[in-house]
Amino acid sequence: MSDDFEYETELQVRFADIDAMGHVNNATYATYLEQARVDYYADVLGVGLDDIDTVLVNLQIDYRHEITLDDETVTVAMGVTSIGESSVTVDYEVRAGDHVAATAETTQVYVDPDEGASRPLPETWVEKMEARRDE
Amino acid sequence: MSDDFEYETELQVRFADIDAMGHVNNATYATYLEQARVDYYADVLGVGLDDIDTVLVNLQIDYRHEITLDDETVTVAMGVTSIGESSVTVDYEVRAGDHVAATAETTQVYVDPDEGASRPLPETWVEKMEARRDE
Amino acid sequence: MSDDFEYETELQVRFADIDAMGHVNNATYATYLEQARVDYYADVLGVGLDDIDTVLVNLQIDYRHEITLDDETVTVAMGVTSIGESSVTVDYEVRAGDHVAATAETTQVYVDPDEGASRPLPETWVEKMEARRDE
Amino acid sequence: MSDDFEYETELQVRFADIDAMGHVNNATYATYLEQARVDYYADVLGVGLDDIDTVLVNLQIDYRHEITLDDETVTVAMGVTSIGESSVTVDYEVRAGDHVAATAETTQVYVDPDEGASRPLPETWVEKMEARRDE
Repeated sequence: MSDDFEYETELQVRFADIDAMGHVNNATYATYLEQARVDYYADVLGVGLDDIDTVLVNLQIDYRHEITLDDETVTVAMGVTSIGESSVTVDYEVRAGDHVAATAETTQVYVDPDEGASRPLPETWVEKMEARRDE
Repeated sequence: MSDDFEYETELQVRFADIDAMGHVNNATYATYLEQARVDYYADVLGVGLDDIDTVLVNLQIDYRHEITLDDETVTVAMGVTSIGESSVTVDYEVRAGDHVAATAETTQVYVDPDEGASRPLPETWVEKMEARRDE
Repeated sequence: MSDDFEYETELQVRFADIDAMGHVNNATYATYLEQARVDYYADVLGVGLDDIDTVLVNLQIDYRHEITLDDETVTVAMGVTSIGESSVTVDYEVRAGDHVAATAETTQVYVDPDEGASRPLPETWVEKMEARRDE
Repeated sequence: MSDDFEYETELQVRFADIDAMGHVNNATYATYLEQARVDYYADVLGVGLDDIDTVLVNLQIDYRHEITLDDETVTVAMGVTSIGESSVTVDYEVRAGDHVAATAETTQVYVDPDEGASRPLPETWVEKMEARRDE
């Protein structure tokens, strides 16, 4: 549902994203999702690359339509569907032209960068994520 | 279970696979799975790039351990878990050093390259997949 | 010289472009140049992916400044410096923030896609390239 | 000349290296050269990822033959052609099957990772590079 998606970002499709089959490679969809998260971290949480400190623990993608260079851009819509003690689950819709090219879900865990162990999400993150969702 | 994995391939970890976090990027795991499929198509089915004609419809990855450049290689074990009329489901285990770095599942559909519509899997593919699994 | 650059395109910097050193990977600069050419082919020559049919024969990049995720975008300026019977030479300037991140030169040859042999550049291409340069 | 090449490494060609034109993408050649350097650093200098601390300042590639998935692997031969106060120049030959797919040259500068300024090459590196060349 569109209500799930409180954030959108538009990403350029590159020639280098196209594989030998003539469409955007399946792994590049994961790159698009990642870039949407990075954009969300910057725009919504105000967190830059050096402070992201989350690791992906689960990725699920349903591929529904090919993306080609003619699409020029894709829009990745995303919504935080669950906020746990140290983890966040996000739903996505990747749109290209008139099509939903993919739906996806990822779960990230907030970790201590030195020890790799999970730790509670920063309170300010949770507040900002919830505020964005309730807008 | 190890019995699920009737095929293994060893892949080199590249410096270019490592992202700003210092470990293999999450999307690159999907690239490793893809390469395992391509190797399986060549080694088990005898099918080259021009005749692969399958598209990925679903991808699920559970990330369990980071992969670093020190690992030098990963081993991707894979097993066909389900053969449908026009689709194949595959389970994977990505191993790096002593760790299972990820488990994964993908579903591919065999398509007509011109029309994009699904079509029945070639009988010779099914025979070879089953023979490999029963070895 | 700025006069050499009759075309500019703005490209998004992705998290996936950043390598373990924390800046855009050296090979990704080549990807940026490639994308600039693809944009030029589309915008100036009106040629899509299926009709590009050129191969790169030489690439030279002088790396002058790092590009980071904070730059968000790079601008690639390019100019056709030489048009031969079947080849085109292009100069580039890759700009990030206030910096020239790189200068570069590539030579492409127009080939027959089936035989791989070089062949004369289409006249309409030459006319459009020259018209753009003389604007 | 073959004498220039005191080091060789064999790299796997991936499906993901192949672009929409059906052969290894031009930027991936730069990735192959990079991986050869990383392998050389590890094998010859005994230097791991965390201590590489060199940046590429110049890259030149002459593309001479396409590389396809059928090649399965490429061999990158490399030789140090010049050792300066803080820089090293390297020549390369990328071989695929019976072909020289590319020749290349890169110059790297040894930098202080915090300040980014060049600094003298470690003496032990120079000794090991010269010893390897004289073998």
